[in-house]
Amino acid sequence: MINILSKSSTKPQLPEDGVLRVYSMRFCPFSQRVHLILDAKKIPHHKIYIDLIDKPEWYKDYSPLGKVPALQLTDVKDQPTLVESMIIAEFLDEQYPELRLFPSDPLHKAQDKILIERFAPVVNAVYPVLTCNANAPKDALTNFETALDAFEQELAKRGTPYFAGQTIGIVDYMIWPWFERFPSLKLTTEHKYELDAKRFGLLLKWRDLVAQDEAVRKTALDAQLHADFQGSKRLGKPQYDIAFKA
Amino acid sequence: MINILSKSSTKPQLPEDGVLRVYSMRFCPFSQRVHLILDAKKIPHHKIYIDLIDKPEWYKDYSPLGKVPALQLTDVKDQPTLVESMIIAEFLDEQYPELRLFPSDPLHKAQDKILIERFAPVVNAVYPVLTCNANAPKDALTNFETALDAFEQELAKRGTPYFAGQTIGIVDYMIWPWFERFPSLKLTTEHKYELDAKRFGLLLKWRDLVAQDEAVRKTALDAQLHADFQGSKRLGKPQYDIAFKA
Repeated sequence: MINILSKSSTKPQLPEDGVLRVYSMRFCPFSQRVHLILDAKKIPHHKIYIDLIDKPEWYKDYSPLGKVPALQLTDVKDQPTLVESMIIAEFLDEQYPELRLFPSDPLHKAQDKILIERFAPVVNAVYPVLTCNANAPKDALTNFETALDAFEQELAKRGTPYFAGQTIGIVDYMIWPWFERFPSLKLTTEHKYELDAKRFGLLLKWRDLVAQDEAVRKTALDAQLHADFQGSKRLGKPQYDIAFKA
Repeated sequence: MINILSKSSTKPQLPEDGVLRVYSMRFCPFSQRVHLILDAKKIPHHKIYIDLIDKPEWYKDYSPLGKVPALQLTDVKDQPTLVESMIIAEFLDEQYPELRLFPSDPLHKAQDKILIERFAPVVNAVYPVLTCNANAPKDALTNFETALDAFEQELAKRGTPYFAGQTIGIVDYMIWPWFERFPSLKLTTEHKYELDAKRFGLLLKWRDLVAQDEAVRKTALDAQLHADFQGSKRLGKPQYDIAFKA
């Protein structure tokens, strides 16, 4: 039984075992980024799920702006909490360097971070459609595809199966959560939207490859669950728990 | 004579001397961040100023989304360009480590990056007032002060003259450009707005201290110039060049 902590909840009582604590929401793509890094690096952690509509009062003590994901370091004085998925990802990569996900060279690291930043226009364009917003701009999917072209081109330019090269890396993990959600568009849009197999040929091959990754499989939810969650959220009653009933 | 390059311009002809090239706009606070790092670290660089209203056609070759600041590395194959002020700052700190501005410890580095991220709500709240937008929300300055409280509290918590400690560091430089601009509010708002000396006592002491820093003085423009620029920009004719006439 998974508890999703809401306003009336009390602070979770967890053992003082020095194990990381992750505050997240199971359908939040930014939270998934952090889970992917933790799972890829096999870093032990406790999971605490937050009701984002009806946030616990005590949560502000950990994440002052109420944001998820948040990572609490219980083996450090004052048990500080980190927020912002990219900052957490880079912290984890430096703190747990056994499996390096960021390039070690400063230039390539900067270029990968810029590429991840360039995914924001993709997300911003598709977000209203992905969340079943009835007022989504008519050209939302057109703008989405235009923004996504840069990633198809980048994969062609790099000439490798993953953005990171021959094995999976930081760009792959950081943009993955949205690729997991795109297939839900087929279920939620009237014209059953799918990515064009020709225009996004390399990205679709990449998607099939990444889908097989161990950490990706560990955090995966299927298109129907994503669609059902967005439907419930649109009605003002997000069903956070359907992720755990499956 | 400083050239501000606009649509009809041709690519600047610069010597192939391997020296960094910085594309920026003299009144852009994000550009100033990069100039502060370069000046603090005394890294030689060429300056190229871009007309942001009437951007050069060729600029997309360097910064695909037309953003400033951009840093071009001319001593690397294909002369790649980096964008995003924070990514550039971290790259420069790793590539030119003689004077370290970011904390070397992963946790403190992450905490400083989170603090810099928390400056975004300050900027977002004050931006319409700072840019003399007639439709600025009535509560803009109230929201600005509430967001700024976190920084006054953080300085108290850290108990040091600079956010970085006894000497200037990355948080100080990254948030400074806006503190340079706040005094222009006294000139542009009807009620001659100034930061409350009691509520923001530590921040105002910090401001006077940072204002004396060599890199800060090198990039500084006074309140009147900032006010004049914003006035010209509001009229649709940004006077980029007034920075150089002074």
